[in-house]
Amino acid sequence: MAGIRWVGFDGDDTLWKSEDYYRKAEADFEAILGAYIDLSDARTHRHLLDVERRNLKIFGYGVKGMTLSMLESAIQLTDERISASDLHRIIEIGRATLQHPVELLPGIREAVEAIARDHEIVLITKGDLFHQEAKIALSGLADLFHRIEVVSEKDEATYARVLHELPVEPARFAMIGNSLRSDIEPVLALGGWGVHMPYHVTWALEAEHGVHADAPRLRVVEHAGQLPDALALIEASQGP
Amino acid sequence: MAGIRWVGFDGDDTLWKSEDYYRKAEADFEAILGAYIDLSDARTHRHLLDVERRNLKIFGYGVKGMTLSMLESAIQLTDERISASDLHRIIEIGRATLQHPVELLPGIREAVEAIARDHEIVLITKGDLFHQEAKIALSGLADLFHRIEVVSEKDEATYARVLHELPVEPARFAMIGNSLRSDIEPVLALGGWGVHMPYHVTWALEAEHGVHADAPRLRVVEHAGQLPDALALIEASQGP
Repeated sequence: MAGIRWVGFDGDDTLWKSEDYYRKAEADFEAILGAYIDLSDARTHRHLLDVERRNLKIFGYGVKGMTLSMLESAIQLTDERISASDLHRIIEIGRATLQHPVELLPGIREAVEAIARDHEIVLITKGDLFHQEAKIALSGLADLFHRIEVVSEKDEATYARVLHELPVEPARFAMIGNSLRSDIEPVLALGGWGVHMPYHVTWALEAEHGVHADAPRLRVVEHAGQLPDALALIEASQGP
Repeated sequence: MAGIRWVGFDGDDTLWKSEDYYRKAEADFEAILGAYIDLSDARTHRHLLDVERRNLKIFGYGVKGMTLSMLESAIQLTDERISASDLHRIIEIGRATLQHPVELLPGIREAVEAIARDHEIVLITKGDLFHQEAKIALSGLADLFHRIEVVSEKDEATYARVLHELPVEPARFAMIGNSLRSDIEPVLALGGWGVHMPYHVTWALEAEHGVHADAPRLRVVEHAGQLPDALALIEASQGP
């Protein structure tokens, strides 16, 4: 019989709020910088993004890397005029972001429970191991998942390894997430299914992708309440 | 038949050099601080350790957390007198430490190959996911291991989960590592075997442990060349 055997869930901005806290961190960062430089200059915002993109290859994803990038960016943008006291405030932004509360998105617990009744489910989340584990524990969802994978990058090679370890054929795997770049594109490329659940904000570096709206094996939902039906429709389309 | 089925290897300072690079980072850090404060004051060194210990609960292990702790410590120890330029140099210390070369310890490749001929082997390494994965890739040892686990903490709960997933009974698992606290104590507590291979330097926060030199199921070797024989002696002691 056909059908989806394993369903993957992304963590940040799929199960729980995340990007909002990064946006708040960025706003707090810019408020500190505002005492030194002209924030209306578009180069200011782009500079942080450039520093982050360059540092990603060395620091990886996550709040600690973001904090180091903010510190570096602040020092460069102010031509080293920024005070140690204000740099300390930027470290405090990082510490606060690492300790943000874990707030589930509306209806997600019910959707995960419903999908877990008929499928094996795996949480596949990217970023800092320590912070992700803390958020998983605080979410109260850990016990619902049959497996949890914290990975450093969500590309084809990573999904191929995880699917091989589960094990499951790509045609019988569906991934649910808010990022076309990290949750959908690599899974479609492997021959799996993607269910895109957009979040209201997307980090600029996640916005770069090559997924077409009419891609085969791609479904889009507006909120978590639609997830069980989206999977049922995928399975119906696979036939008996 | 009795015998060890799975053998675990620690990464940092067991397979490859690590603590030396942290020590160099600390020396470079103190050289920068020396322009502001009296380094002969024992409180200076203890202050960084105190900041690191407090931040571990929020940042976790690894170079990025160490760098943030160094920045914070430098700001506090200089009463905010340190320049942005010198704080930038501390960020550069972190970046350099994340990019240090991966240098295998003497004889370790041969020892891992010999042990892999008769056992399943798993790499169990603690710290930053992104940095650990980079080091594993650079080590050239990844293909020898049947499994690789990057974990955020090496305590009894973590080893219990990993042994359950392999799966293997503790009595048929031996862990090889340089840290009594992280590699040996929790495995002995679960009923497994520990092979301690001391490294010439140990981070102060790893030096706290409760392992007695005459603990049952503990063996000590001086260098990697002795590892295969140490395992053979463990298996001989288990009887037929």
